[in-house]
Amino acid sequence: MAQKPSTPKGMRDFLPHEVARRTYLIQTIRNQFEKFGFLPIETPAMERREVLLGKYGDEGDRLVFKVLNSGEKVKKADLNALSEGQLARFSNSLSEKALRYDLTVPLARFVAQHQNDLQFPFKRYQIQSVWRADRPQHGRFQEFTQCDADVIGSESRLVELEFVQLFDAVFTDLGLKDCTLRINHREILSLLAQQSGAEDRVASFLIILDKLDKIGWDGVIKSLKEEGFTTAVVEKLRASESASMTPSQKIDMLAELIDPESTSSAAFDEMRFLFSTASLNSLKVDFDWTLARGLDYYTGAIFELAPPKQVKVGTIAAGGRYDDLTSTFGLSDMSGIGISFGLDRLYLVLEELQLFPSHLASPIDLMVVQFDQEIITQLMPLLHRLRSSGVNITVYPNSARLKKQFHYADKLGIPYVLIVGSEEFEKGQGVLKNMLTGTQKTISLEALDVSFFE
Amino acid sequence: MAQKPSTPKGMRDFLPHEVARRTYLIQTIRNQFEKFGFLPIETPAMERREVLLGKYGDEGDRLVFKVLNSGEKVKKADLNALSEGQLARFSNSLSEKALRYDLTVPLARFVAQHQNDLQFPFKRYQIQSVWRADRPQHGRFQEFTQCDADVIGSESRLVELEFVQLFDAVFTDLGLKDCTLRINHREILSLLAQQSGAEDRVASFLIILDKLDKIGWDGVIKSLKEEGFTTAVVEKLRASESASMTPSQKIDMLAELIDPESTSSAAFDEMRFLFSTASLNSLKVDFDWTLARGLDYYTGAIFELAPPKQVKVGTIAAGGRYDDLTSTFGLSDMSGIGISFGLDRLYLVLEELQLFPSHLASPIDLMVVQFDQEIITQLMPLLHRLRSSGVNITVYPNSARLKKQFHYADKLGIPYVLIVGSEEFEKGQGVLKNMLTGTQKTISLEALDVSFFE
Repeated sequence: MAQKPSTPKGMRDFLPHEVARRTYLIQTIRNQFEKFGFLPIETPAMERREVLLGKYGDEGDRLVFKVLNSGEKVKKADLNALSEGQLARFSNSLSEKALRYDLTVPLARFVAQHQNDLQFPFKRYQIQSVWRADRPQHGRFQEFTQCDADVIGSESRLVELEFVQLFDAVFTDLGLKDCTLRINHREILSLLAQQSGAEDRVASFLIILDKLDKIGWDGVIKSLKEEGFTTAVVEKLRASESASMTPSQKIDMLAELIDPESTSSAAFDEMRFLFSTASLNSLKVDFDWTLARGLDYYTGAIFELAPPKQVKVGTIAAGGRYDDLTSTFGLSDMSGIGISFGLDRLYLVLEELQLFPSHLASPIDLMVVQFDQEIITQLMPLLHRLRSSGVNITVYPNSARLKKQFHYADKLGIPYVLIVGSEEFEKGQGVLKNMLTGTQKTISLEALDVSFFE
Repeated sequence: MAQKPSTPKGMRDFLPHEVARRTYLIQTIRNQFEKFGFLPIETPAMERREVLLGKYGDEGDRLVFKVLNSGEKVKKADLNALSEGQLARFSNSLSEKALRYDLTVPLARFVAQHQNDLQFPFKRYQIQSVWRADRPQHGRFQEFTQCDADVIGSESRLVELEFVQLFDAVFTDLGLKDCTLRINHREILSLLAQQSGAEDRVASFLIILDKLDKIGWDGVIKSLKEEGFTTAVVEKLRASESASMTPSQKIDMLAELIDPESTSSAAFDEMRFLFSTASLNSLKVDFDWTLARGLDYYTGAIFELAPPKQVKVGTIAAGGRYDDLTSTFGLSDMSGIGISFGLDRLYLVLEELQLFPSHLASPIDLMVVQFDQEIITQLMPLLHRLRSSGVNITVYPNSARLKKQFHYADKLGIPYVLIVGSEEFEKGQGVLKNMLTGTQKTISLEALDVSFFE
């Protein structure tokens, strides 16, 4: 019996016009990564389970796809764990490998493993799929593509600056305006948390602050109080802020309020440097002391990039500086900083704003109509010559009515069709039809070249 | 405690120079796929388990990587199956999804699922990773990349012809000569099997014939006899064949010996057409009546492409015609034909024959030395201008000794280095050093443009 064909939940096929658009995005981003001197690496889809687990928090661990051991190894199933309801332990007894959850932990593993073959500072980019067993929703998939660039082994603030320029360069190339890049610094956030009585509970403080978008200021203040934080400083900051402040004014305001003794002056200086030096074409950029970013491992500057307000897909790019992520794998004292573009969300944004170039419609330049198999075989040298000079050609392979063949070319958006009947062929001629305008002309096959299709 | 960083067995990281070479291969193949009018699609890494299992034979089923169900679902583990030693059934109770094993079965599922959105004949290409839980060895990996092109919905022999031309075009672009494309036809093989007493055991006959490379003629004859086949026809064919025969002569010889009543004349005609029409630049092409190809689903022409004899990596490309693969998913009467390049083996061949272009060495054109952070920030507009005109630039981000910075550029194979000290900067000048020749010259920063790096 025939199976009903379908993809797994949360996973997608891509049709030709979608692949063309994804390829356009990837090439645009890759092109800028290379302009900024990043080198490509790739890591396997699977990592050893212990490389991934424990790096993304409990929630992250639950979302990691584990790969079932093959063959006899499943006999090692820990049935005690199952009967005790220890499902994670049971799963682990059946699985030695897991699928990439992001590109950052694999990078840390990669850098530690290949440290003797790399030059530091190591600037790498990586464009690959990642998988998360998350509940699918708009803009959130179980398989999606990340485009990451990181620098490992440099503490220079020039790197932050170049990343801001890189963000701007990519968005300029994509024609995407009115995106906002928000920037903050983890040290400034820590200082704020300390001044709110966080002591060793900085993470809890940040988790609450991170919910600002969802629960609003009243919710944040309420939650902070409930968790035993003081809110005087946060409320004072909020009151002192006005929409018309420049980033530099915000930084100065914040420094004055939470760091009067300049204990974190380096962090503030870094922010000042970034905002005073970056020169941007497409992006709006702002200092946002409420930006927290979920991931634990950030230690310095953090970035988050939102699409224009009318597009509802959440963050489309983000990043930050993390110290010492590679030490988990035995390589210490390596400050890292990286950014990531979410390809699938960028796609949704460009689609909604109709920013994909129209030339992506068809990669095929010409369809050759088939009247007669013999004539097509005689045309092979011509097709070879045209293809060699850069023309993409499809030969309609079946004997079908002319109307059907034209319909096919039309549906595929192929701009030109070549018809060579036996009489024309004897004269070395053919009829070239422009499918867009409907006009056609008799041409010499010998003279036909790439210029006809440009 | 630090974890020892390593990839799972049979899976590989790719360093920048390896990614550059893989990208070169992919772009070369993709370019020819598009010249021949194929359109790109992508399918998810995971398919529903039942889409994959049962399509590749028992051995194939064992090699499919299954993905462990998440969360509570593992409670459904079929413990009876485990205690009865029914490991496949036990595994299936824990897994609803599995990783792509090849690109052909996902294509069949894709075509059936999206049939209303596709134009037939549907010509698609697909370049993605596949995973097999196979024992790793030279040229065989657990994760590897296939580059497939298929035509679904055409029985025209022009398609076989175009695939032969496509093979040749790719190998011409790669500069890879002395590869041999062997071609056979499944109907001819079936006829031969019938004449050897196969009746309904054609598959068993082919499995034995397929071992010729490994066990030689004596082994094949012996195995055929042991399995109850007659060997008179096979032995006669073998005796009649000589190395100096052209493909057409071989086809005629075979037709005369095994098909005197022309019951399979269409298959022989198709082979004659292919060999008389194909016009090749790089490939050697031969008709080989012993070529069987493992996969069950082939029904017409079959192809297998071997590297030059001195390179020991097995088949690097292959393919064939299969009728009705999509009927498993409810779409019948769709003849398909496809070919596949094995990217990872092609890589080994080009590496061994030193055929990778030297320009792949570094994607970075220029490194800017850092003396002084202030000067670098002043140079940002220059860097922006150069990058916009196509120059790939890395800024050495750390303050380090000049010697160390030059060493870095040298190790990365960066051809040019720009040094701008404060005195030079005041004069609007810099020193551009050619790292290959060691020569350096003072240049005007304003005049510096892309032509300096070509």
